[in-house]
Amino acid sequence: MKVAILGHGNIGRAAEAAVKAAPDMELAGIYHHDDCLSCIAGNIDVMLVCTPTREVQKFATVLAARGICTVDSFDIHGQIWSLRTALDAVCQANQSVSIISAGWDPGSDSMVRALLMAMAPNGLTYTNFGPGRSMGHTVAAKAIPGVKNALSMTIPLGTGIHRRMVYIELEEGADFKTVEAAILADDYFAHDETHVIAVESVEALNNVAHGVNLVRNGVSGETHNQRFEFNMTINNPALTGQVMVSCARAAMRMKERGEFGAKTMIELRPIDLLPGTKEILIKALV
Amino acid sequence: MKVAILGHGNIGRAAEAAVKAAPDMELAGIYHHDDCLSCIAGNIDVMLVCTPTREVQKFATVLAARGICTVDSFDIHGQIWSLRTALDAVCQANQSVSIISAGWDPGSDSMVRALLMAMAPNGLTYTNFGPGRSMGHTVAAKAIPGVKNALSMTIPLGTGIHRRMVYIELEEGADFKTVEAAILADDYFAHDETHVIAVESVEALNNVAHGVNLVRNGVSGETHNQRFEFNMTINNPALTGQVMVSCARAAMRMKERGEFGAKTMIELRPIDLLPGTKEILIKALV
Repeated sequence: MKVAILGHGNIGRAAEAAVKAAPDMELAGIYHHDDCLSCIAGNIDVMLVCTPTREVQKFATVLAARGICTVDSFDIHGQIWSLRTALDAVCQANQSVSIISAGWDPGSDSMVRALLMAMAPNGLTYTNFGPGRSMGHTVAAKAIPGVKNALSMTIPLGTGIHRRMVYIELEEGADFKTVEAAILADDYFAHDETHVIAVESVEALNNVAHGVNLVRNGVSGETHNQRFEFNMTINNPALTGQVMVSCARAAMRMKERGEFGAKTMIELRPIDLLPGTKEILIKALV
Repeated sequence: MKVAILGHGNIGRAAEAAVKAAPDMELAGIYHHDDCLSCIAGNIDVMLVCTPTREVQKFATVLAARGICTVDSFDIHGQIWSLRTALDAVCQANQSVSIISAGWDPGSDSMVRALLMAMAPNGLTYTNFGPGRSMGHTVAAKAIPGVKNALSMTIPLGTGIHRRMVYIELEEGADFKTVEAAILADDYFAHDETHVIAVESVEALNNVAHGVNLVRNGVSGETHNQRFEFNMTINNPALTGQVMVSCARAAMRMKERGEFGAKTMIELRPIDLLPGTKEILIKALV
């Protein structure tokens, strides 16, 4: 399988390492946002779209229209269905497969949530994120006047409630109390317990560690108190890149079977994510 | 969907409750091992085969040959591939779908193991069972001369190592030390730390609680120390019955799409396990 990468930031570099480690893949090129897409070689099976999330649809649409399978980690939960709908039409018309929102949340966490719902259809699932950096909240904090650099950490408090720890470097002459008030009033932070802390260097806090604690207490049949928990502590871009690469394998297999279209991870068969024959995988994993 | 049940023990009764709780299913009959299979009504979409595991192949083969989809929770790990191979041919020839080994291990745990391997391809996974009753070990202990009744509990010690706690009621006149030595020498127990305890009443210990602690520490791309953990504490037959019922839904959908054959759970799409439209499920879970 010839797998290429579009975008070479944190996730693109992690995806590169995962492609190189895969026994059944060959790295077919690394492209940048501003390369002309028509220059992309024609012999690519799957393109990993590692651009900023808001640029995913534009690139994936062009590639899918050329019959090239794509995988992205589009992570705006409220817009996933509309991305899927738009890309699905392009894929169906051009016999390609696009796997969307293939990271860890959305992504592998979504598969766990679906499985737990199948195991206990009634009940509550809570997804508790972190401790780890929130990209969205970090960007929101950086946009506040007087903030030179910022890092917003997500701290899980249980039952899906999160604390925001916002570390900021102030611009010269900025007033901490004024900046703090502006952050606390921002819609990104106004609804959560938020603490703002001034630091000398945000760069010194840089760490791509993240995690999740996903819990469900539900009912199987008529039996209550069925308890499930999924935990992980991970390097965030490394996991995202690896999930994308495993999904590239699934995209290729689906294309070979003529199963064209855009899919989320809960629409994939776990076995398609893995290298090796069905016999070897079933004997090892089932 | 018309779903029927063959076998009405612990798992059959739990499956009955799960069918009745499913919004998209109708209970189409409960059959017993010794009913003549040719008397089974022709309008069944899926039969849940809740017989003892060694009788699964016989019944599933007859049903699949009549074009009726089946789901079983066949749990002899070393024989799953051969069951799949045999049933697959019958299903392909008769346009039916059989989902095999659809419990929690093998079953939902298998899906988690596959997903974790896709997230961190190199590394070790340990599946730690219990505390809970082991059916196989309980049967082995009951077969020892001098044992009137027995219960073998599986206690997880980590890294896939388990302790066996064997509670026995002695036959009148039986010598505890002799019975204990026979249990410890039995191949089921000789390889694990095993404790034999005489009790007045094994029935008084009856409890269908079980659990699992499934851990993986692996490598995503070139990044080590990616840590994952899946825990559950559950009513064992209730979960097994529920998983079978969710898989009945997947079998029906696969049959409607013309995807005939015998499949294990790692070959299923999680979304197919759940009632509702793709749009509702993707918006809720991804």
